Amino acid sequence: MMTGYPAPMRRLIKELSRFPGVGEKTASRLAAFILHTPREEARRLAESIMEVKEKIRLCATCFNLAEGEFCDVCKDTTREKDVICVVEEPDSLIAIEESGSFRGTYHVLHGALSPLDGVGPERLRLQELRDRIERNRVREVIVATNPSVQGESTALLITRMLKEKDVRVTRIAFGVPMGGDLKYVDKMTLAKAIEFRRGM
Amino acid sequence: MMTGYPAPMRRLIKELSRFPGVGEKTASRLAAFILHTPREEARRLAESIMEVKEKIRLCATCFNLAEGEFCDVCKDTTREKDVICVVEEPDSLIAIEESGSFRGTYHVLHGALSPLDGVGPERLRLQELRDRIERNRVREVIVATNPSVQGESTALLITRMLKEKDVRVTRIAFGVPMGGDLKYVDKMTLAKAIEFRRGM
Repeated sequence: MMTGYPAPMRRLIKELSRFPGVGEKTASRLAAFILHTPREEARRLAESIMEVKEKIRLCATCFNLAEGEFCDVCKDTTREKDVICVVEEPDSLIAIEESGSFRGTYHVLHGALSPLDGVGPERLRLQELRDRIERNRVREVIVATNPSVQGESTALLITRMLKEKDVRVTRIAFGVPMGGDLKYVDKMTLAKAIEFRRGM
Repeated sequence: MMTGYPAPMRRLIKELSRFPGVGEKTASRLAAFILHTPREEARRLAESIMEVKEKIRLCATCFNLAEGEFCDVCKDTTREKDVICVVEEPDSLIAIEESGSFRGTYHVLHGALSPLDGVGPERLRLQELRDRIERNRVREVIVATNPSVQGESTALLITRMLKEKDVRVTRIAFGVPMGGDLKYVDKMTLAKAIEFRRGM
């Protein structure tokens, strides 16, 4: 598909195809868009790519994305430092922040246990989590890893790791999502919803 | 969704959401990928964006994408200059080149008639097509605009425009695509396939 394009277009298409879920067809479409976009907008895109690489690092406390040494959540003195919500990735953190339902702090593992992919406990930020719990007299750790095999085994590992510590370990609830209709909810989710039922 | 990200990430997500078909969710995913990609790869992407803006222009003859004054097809002396294939966009040209079935030259209109979008004949490269035909004693113009309402009306316009000229105007064939099965072909295409039937 690419051979007919001039070399700079071919190079751009090749770079864009590195994106996850972007094949050569989509990359060609994106490259054509860049070609037609005003020069100033293209420059802003190119610059913001490099800006992210240069300025974003991981928060020294919770490993969330940060512009300086600490992330916005950790810098916020009104957040409860003694409640830590553990997530796999920064995007989970963003989703919880958007829900506006949490006033504590976070801990981003940057992954989940996945032995088949060579991700063992040492690849996650678990030692740092343990250190924080000891240092800050943490009351509760809410494990908000994803509802997947990897997320569940990571949750189990954290529970075991903290068993000896004087800290309450909880798991976010799984069940029927709000809105919609029970008849469209998958079997696994319904089973969880019944398992996690509570008194009214 | 974006408010929880540090400013450089927010800016990158905003720039990436300008792409056609890319919403904020996809843009966040692409931005996260850039964040995790090695610095050198990110730099190559940023540079190739600017390179395309700086180096690519339109061929002075056929308006195909070109690195210099003329495109690769027009520079190729073995291509037949007296047969011109008219296409809407450079990506149609690329697709025909990939098929390896055409040894003539092209003319890229950069659009198709679409009065509702304010695209009239003056917005397409039609005057330049007429000039080329007069200058180069063109034998045949193959109209390869898309099989859409816009493409068809553009084809009609070109046919009318060249009626007085001493040039054969042809249209690419529409019909059942190769491979697959007739029962999966839509009605419009089957109707075209029967209309365009030819003796064996």
